[in-house]
Amino acid sequence: MKKEFIVPGFKANGIACGIKKNGTEDLALLYSVVPSVVAGVFTKNSFKAAPVVLDMMRIKNNLCQAIVINSGNANAATGEEGLHDAYTITKEVATALGIEENLVLVASTGVIGERLPIEKIKGSIGRLISGLTEKGIKKAAKAIMTTDKFPKIAFCQERIGGNEITLCGIAKGAGMICPDMATMLAFFMTDVQIEQEVLHRLFHQVVNDSFNAISVDGCMSTNDMAIIVANGVAKNKTLTKGDKRMRIFKEMLLYCAKQLAEFIVRDGEGATKIIEVTVSGAEKLGEAKKIAMAIANSNLVKTAVFGGDPNWGRIISAVGSSGVKIETKKVKLYIEDMLVFAEDKRKEVEPKRLHDVMSQEKIKIFVDLGKGKKVFSVLASDLTYDYIKINAHYHT
Amino acid sequence: MKKEFIVPGFKANGIACGIKKNGTEDLALLYSVVPSVVAGVFTKNSFKAAPVVLDMMRIKNNLCQAIVINSGNANAATGEEGLHDAYTITKEVATALGIEENLVLVASTGVIGERLPIEKIKGSIGRLISGLTEKGIKKAAKAIMTTDKFPKIAFCQERIGGNEITLCGIAKGAGMICPDMATMLAFFMTDVQIEQEVLHRLFHQVVNDSFNAISVDGCMSTNDMAIIVANGVAKNKTLTKGDKRMRIFKEMLLYCAKQLAEFIVRDGEGATKIIEVTVSGAEKLGEAKKIAMAIANSNLVKTAVFGGDPNWGRIISAVGSSGVKIETKKVKLYIEDMLVFAEDKRKEVEPKRLHDVMSQEKIKIFVDLGKGKKVFSVLASDLTYDYIKINAHYHT
Repeated sequence: MKKEFIVPGFKANGIACGIKKNGTEDLALLYSVVPSVVAGVFTKNSFKAAPVVLDMMRIKNNLCQAIVINSGNANAATGEEGLHDAYTITKEVATALGIEENLVLVASTGVIGERLPIEKIKGSIGRLISGLTEKGIKKAAKAIMTTDKFPKIAFCQERIGGNEITLCGIAKGAGMICPDMATMLAFFMTDVQIEQEVLHRLFHQVVNDSFNAISVDGCMSTNDMAIIVANGVAKNKTLTKGDKRMRIFKEMLLYCAKQLAEFIVRDGEGATKIIEVTVSGAEKLGEAKKIAMAIANSNLVKTAVFGGDPNWGRIISAVGSSGVKIETKKVKLYIEDMLVFAEDKRKEVEPKRLHDVMSQEKIKIFVDLGKGKKVFSVLASDLTYDYIKINAHYHT
Repeated sequence: MKKEFIVPGFKANGIACGIKKNGTEDLALLYSVVPSVVAGVFTKNSFKAAPVVLDMMRIKNNLCQAIVINSGNANAATGEEGLHDAYTITKEVATALGIEENLVLVASTGVIGERLPIEKIKGSIGRLISGLTEKGIKKAAKAIMTTDKFPKIAFCQERIGGNEITLCGIAKGAGMICPDMATMLAFFMTDVQIEQEVLHRLFHQVVNDSFNAISVDGCMSTNDMAIIVANGVAKNKTLTKGDKRMRIFKEMLLYCAKQLAEFIVRDGEGATKIIEVTVSGAEKLGEAKKIAMAIANSNLVKTAVFGGDPNWGRIISAVGSSGVKIETKKVKLYIEDMLVFAEDKRKEVEPKRLHDVMSQEKIKIFVDLGKGKKVFSVLASDLTYDYIKINAHYHT
């Protein structure tokens, strides 16, 4: 990546502090030069990791100036001590930056159930902060990786009413990716000036259509979060509710979030292919989503895609077992533009063409329920030997 | 297997009729010398295969005398023509046996979306019937296999009030095994004399605690069914509602059903290990089941077990993401007899012992929710390279 990712008013850094045994980067800091409005979406897992518990409380202040993130250890299932560790880190960072402690958020990703090496982290905060630069976002993106094969950064700039607005997001994903946030961390920095309430609502919408519309393995983690920090340095006229200029910012955010979501799926543990599942013709959006996820999470569909096998019966079977009430006679299944199933039976297609399509790197599955107008799309990875390899031996 | 499996008043056979390309057995017949009471449980998949549709109607008569089963082709997603094929088969079998057509049930398993080679089947029915013998159950068990590595038969005999009662069940499983019946076929034959209504209720209970309490890959098929046929040849005093002797028959049925269920998990596609997940302390049975299934269906848990990796954080994560409301502080997680997690944090255990346990062929996971008295247990297989291998290339 030759491009520089700079968001006015933000500095970042990423260093190795010894949490990961292999000595690679594992501690990142994102810092805004001024206190900023913030919004976040957090895992729905009942066992929330310590940083999630802390951030969910702290984000109610609606203001944030720094986010400190470590990889290599999730600080999850660590009880009161883990929560204390999370507080300690934000306190140390706040003191060193000379800002209020409640303006600092914290995130962790990695192995569950082990205490953070808190002394190592404390001992590295000075170095982390002294290395903060405008060009540091790439370093931060690298330092939040776990089994990710590449750092994930999305960036865009648009003019909103005469002001140039910059947005940059970084994410880590890889395994345990599923709706409702999985082991996924995503952080967005923007210089737009926007009302917190408006940002909050918009961010939830965008997360639902991006990070909550992907699946690697159907597992939801204890640590997931997506956070957006808007520091207003662009000095545009503040975006408020009903403001027509919101459309542009929404597009920017959706563009970056979808790009990061696709990066996460492409980098899904062991993934070799992408499956795009679209379910249309639903009466309710939730039904379209439930069916799309049933297909995207089916191990049988995922292995068939890996094998380049046009076993569309498995897709139909996943649709039928989703729990959503359907009229089977009305259901149509397309693979790319080929109608393979309708009126309760297979349709003749050219076998070679079907095989060719199944061999593509990206495969589009389209199910029309023939009942309503709601549509939902999901991106998923295939299920491969390498997924097994990575996950059978991750911990030890 | 040297043991003979004979149920008084039943004959069976299994032959190769050319549905499977490799020439192995693919057509089976189970026959009672007298019309018998019958009960069945069928897939909840909305796309029900033709034989399921037919049997669900026909079983309302409460009587059955023969079941014809083919493997190699599921007769699913085959529309009106497929249903017609299913009718044709039962009609031909009925005519050849000289019994009423509505006393014949039919089952299919195999590839979805292709018409049955109906002429081959019709042309083989004479041979299928002429080969019927009391010792033919083993042949039938073999002929219903798809990717199964071994035939699955469970057998028991007990005295009920002076009469010897025999029960024998056969099943096929392998892939797509999940609650609610998956690609699973199971057929039980017994000579007990029992009221149909009593048999029906008992059979549903037993299926819920056996076949609906296993998971290979979380996928539910279009073809699943479990059927029990009781021909009364033992001439015991008819078992009726509230009859104390029912306890013995229930135990027999549960014993055989659980044995077949365990065979199915052991023979799960690519399986190398068995995971027994027990969730206790739930307020509602459905909640215990939901959590047990969330663990049993987690790809991350299944791969960790395959790798012999004591990554219990994945189990906790699965519990927390099940959607069931829990009080995390009350949750205890044991692996075998070792408490590894309680009060929101890990507990110290001897690492070597934990590794040793994870290397066992059968691993017991025990979660106590600390809220109520309901308990549910599930058997699951691990997720392995061979699962991928088998499922990436099954169709072609």
